[in-house]
Amino acid sequence: MVTNVVSNDKLYLGIDGGGSKCKATIVDTAGVILGTGIGGPANPFHGFSQATTSIIDSAQLALDDAKLSGEQISELIVGMGLAGVNLPSLYQQMAEWQHPFKKLFLTTDLHIACLGAHDGNDGAIMITGTGSCGYSLISGESKIVGGHGFPHADQGSGAWLGLQAVSSVLMSLDGIAQHSLMNKLMLEHLNCKNDLELVELVANKPARFFAQLAFVVFDAAQQQDVLACSIVDIGATYISNIARSLQLENPVRMSLIGGLAPKITPWLAADVQAWLQAPINLPEIGAIIYAKQQVTGEI
Amino acid sequence: MVTNVVSNDKLYLGIDGGGSKCKATIVDTAGVILGTGIGGPANPFHGFSQATTSIIDSAQLALDDAKLSGEQISELIVGMGLAGVNLPSLYQQMAEWQHPFKKLFLTTDLHIACLGAHDGNDGAIMITGTGSCGYSLISGESKIVGGHGFPHADQGSGAWLGLQAVSSVLMSLDGIAQHSLMNKLMLEHLNCKNDLELVELVANKPARFFAQLAFVVFDAAQQQDVLACSIVDIGATYISNIARSLQLENPVRMSLIGGLAPKITPWLAADVQAWLQAPINLPEIGAIIYAKQQVTGEI
Repeated sequence: MVTNVVSNDKLYLGIDGGGSKCKATIVDTAGVILGTGIGGPANPFHGFSQATTSIIDSAQLALDDAKLSGEQISELIVGMGLAGVNLPSLYQQMAEWQHPFKKLFLTTDLHIACLGAHDGNDGAIMITGTGSCGYSLISGESKIVGGHGFPHADQGSGAWLGLQAVSSVLMSLDGIAQHSLMNKLMLEHLNCKNDLELVELVANKPARFFAQLAFVVFDAAQQQDVLACSIVDIGATYISNIARSLQLENPVRMSLIGGLAPKITPWLAADVQAWLQAPINLPEIGAIIYAKQQVTGEI
Repeated sequence: MVTNVVSNDKLYLGIDGGGSKCKATIVDTAGVILGTGIGGPANPFHGFSQATTSIIDSAQLALDDAKLSGEQISELIVGMGLAGVNLPSLYQQMAEWQHPFKKLFLTTDLHIACLGAHDGNDGAIMITGTGSCGYSLISGESKIVGGHGFPHADQGSGAWLGLQAVSSVLMSLDGIAQHSLMNKLMLEHLNCKNDLELVELVANKPARFFAQLAFVVFDAAQQQDVLACSIVDIGATYISNIARSLQLENPVRMSLIGGLAPKITPWLAADVQAWLQAPINLPEIGAIIYAKQQVTGEI
């Protein structure tokens, strides 16, 4: 095995930790990507021990991928954005973690996503994946809109769309709402024969389960299904309203990111669509930008 | 202690088992109430062992209250209506329970509620408490509308109203929805200072937590709060639609029961309000009616 020697150079690790996976990227001082890794769930809201294990797993996989030794984990200067640490109690717990890195700079997943999307410059983002949220960072001032979680918030997210779809399908099967193409698509996708089986299957499921049903809504909406179009419209209106709220801060750039961004973009208000620009970098690169900003700030 | 002697008489126990408590009533052959008891949660969906423990607890409390000995549990002819046993797998599991009673006749909570409301005669009911559901029983044919659970269904129920209220309050505090009287009422009720504390408090909470917030919606709606009125309207429209679906079966009587019935009745459509008649008996009495019907049917 050839092991990279990067003496007299700094090693930066960017961590993007979310509710379903943890993404890690190692770069050198010049910004050249040396290796990447993906670990398990890393939102400390769902368990501190699970989150720290996933972070270390992803870092070790990135070290392997970079052909660096596992022990060099102690040389890494880490920028880390985690879902959940906007809650003060969770931020505190993660900040007190006895981590194995050289340095650890902790911030939110929103912050690194915004730094990544705009290559470290000021701007605003909306995210729609399993959850949804808006965030802007302008002249060092950040603003968060939404991002409160499932099932009580995050309109326009995958989990919200999936939950509304289940709700509509059950009303439709009961004859309380009109027939919907989603009925057939959802029962087929979940391999259910009827509403009783559907109810048994969806009971007590987490956000990520419902998020996987979001495509049923978009498929049906694309075929002009009235109930599906109504759900997507409500969700897209919420994302548009987040965008308008962020636009009040006059961001130079605005991006929509996350797994559902391509699907929901055509449903956004025309003025909002006109504001959107493609994200420049991934969130894990944003995490490295954050670490470099902090290191520079320390000098 | 005086112990009742009821030789040459049958003892009937009626059980109404739901997600938060289990209500038991003992009557003699003539229908005279001898004693009552209340046990813990008895929906087998949340645990078979918890449910059977709550059922026996409530039966023992009713025996005590009737001044009967604990051993006379083996003399009880039981009619039992349980939430959750409309799911075939749970019905099967409960039906196989090695119970301590003389006889056990198992059915759904909806069935006994309907028998109770109409004193054993045909009719239809809508229930709105923690959950919501519609049910009719006419010439031995039953029909269920709704009752699919939280958070994916049961519009117009306490849990649904509470969930919508949290959702609206968070949008309102974010500036995405207009100001609402519910913001202040909810933060005060939950002793929260802001949206972050509210989100920490409501995360991962069960249906019964959200159901306790339903009064916030009704309080605000009574004061013409726009967001609250909109939530109650959607919920009441759903209950009205359930009523219309049940009315297709031409029930002789129709009742609205459950903890939220008095609150939501004024919001129902005028035609639906005109159909409603007061329930005659409680569900646990309906359970006894069911047991007596089954015993008579056996002769």
